[in-house]
Amino acid sequence: MAETVHMIDSEVFLAFSTYATIVVLKMMLMSLMTSYFRLTKQVFSNLEDTNLAKTTEDRKKLVRVDPDVERVRRCHLNDLENIVPFVVIGLLYALTGPDLSMALLHFRVFVGSRFIHTVAYVMALPQPTRALAFGPPFCYDQPNLLETTLQL
Amino acid sequence: MAETVHMIDSEVFLAFSTYATIVVLKMMLMSLMTSYFRLTKQVFSNLEDTNLAKTTEDRKKLVRVDPDVERVRRCHLNDLENIVPFVVIGLLYALTGPDLSMALLHFRVFVGSRFIHTVAYVMALPQPTRALAFGPPFCYDQPNLLETTLQL
Amino acid sequence: MAETVHMIDSEVFLAFSTYATIVVLKMMLMSLMTSYFRLTKQVFSNLEDTNLAKTTEDRKKLVRVDPDVERVRRCHLNDLENIVPFVVIGLLYALTGPDLSMALLHFRVFVGSRFIHTVAYVMALPQPTRALAFGPPFCYDQPNLLETTLQL
Repeated sequence: MAETVHMIDSEVFLAFSTYATIVVLKMMLMSLMTSYFRLTKQVFSNLEDTNLAKTTEDRKKLVRVDPDVERVRRCHLNDLENIVPFVVIGLLYALTGPDLSMALLHFRVFVGSRFIHTVAYVMALPQPTRALAFGPPFCYDQPNLLETTLQL
Repeated sequence: MAETVHMIDSEVFLAFSTYATIVVLKMMLMSLMTSYFRLTKQVFSNLEDTNLAKTTEDRKKLVRVDPDVERVRRCHLNDLENIVPFVVIGLLYALTGPDLSMALLHFRVFVGSRFIHTVAYVMALPQPTRALAFGPPFCYDQPNLLETTLQL
Repeated sequence: MAETVHMIDSEVFLAFSTYATIVVLKMMLMSLMTSYFRLTKQVFSNLEDTNLAKTTEDRKKLVRVDPDVERVRRCHLNDLENIVPFVVIGLLYALTGPDLSMALLHFRVFVGSRFIHTVAYVMALPQPTRALAFGPPFCYDQPNLLETTLQL
């Protein structure tokens, strides 16, 4: 543990920074995708967002729930629920000084899976596409990071 | 502050890593609990998740909202809303070089409370069980960490 | 990169700690605001939370959805979706050793915008107040942090 501090300068920490940034950027894009669907489908959750409509009656009609918007929102929440653990555990894992190739494998499996998960979710691809993109990092990748982290 | 960097090697940082990992792991288990309830109660939020049903009519019926599943999902979101601040503030707090016994007390109160909170929420125990599990870390534990962190 | 480790002692890291703590504290206050609205408007999402009502009929009536509570909850979720990326990217950005005045500008724009966003959301101020508070940090501030972080 005495050398933990040097890990911040390591290749593994550098790799973690890059992959964490990429996957967080991907998560931020979900906000833009929600806005895009809300604007193109004219579906809003706040009355003050509907000021392009003319009459009050028309505005109230635009405050509604749309399955496609809800789908993107569920995908966004699922991202939050999974990317937050990855960032926390990945950071601590990077500080344990793991093997670079092993660390890269973990980071790439996770980040790749999240991209596939998003495509499968938003495009409603037939299962088990989304389940497979969700399962492996959840059941194999993250627990492995956890195990190493607990040895810190 | 000149010695902040040594804090990454400290006992407090080690303790933080362990408790942060435990509480994040607990949060990840909420995903599995949601899946468990969805599969056992046959309640889904996407049409493509219902491909075990035979007819389209049957499949559409499985896309519905169930109070037990919603309860687990609210608990999961509550975890996210509280564990994210703990991880951020706890990390910065660990870098301020606090007293180990004090830090352990804070970390244990928080992590213990979150476990009690989850049990109270999912099993719908009578109030004020859940309120007490939510309140103390929120009103005492986290502000204390914040105070120290702002002295950094 | 060899000097990354010294960045934890830097002024920029100190500034990041302060602004991250402030914005996370602001996010935690959303929980209190939700509780406040739930108690004053008597709107609950769990039956066990309604034990101040006398009869079972009265209790069931209190488990309902209220537009004001939902508004605060959407604002809280929006905070989570945006503050998590800020914390992750801001931390890595602070480790790249950026210019202090530039870093302070980024942190202040982000934190200030989030406060304006919350006020605009909870008070339902006419658009584009909320859109302007959301847009600039999202489209200008965060991508800039990202760009620097990817150069790590």
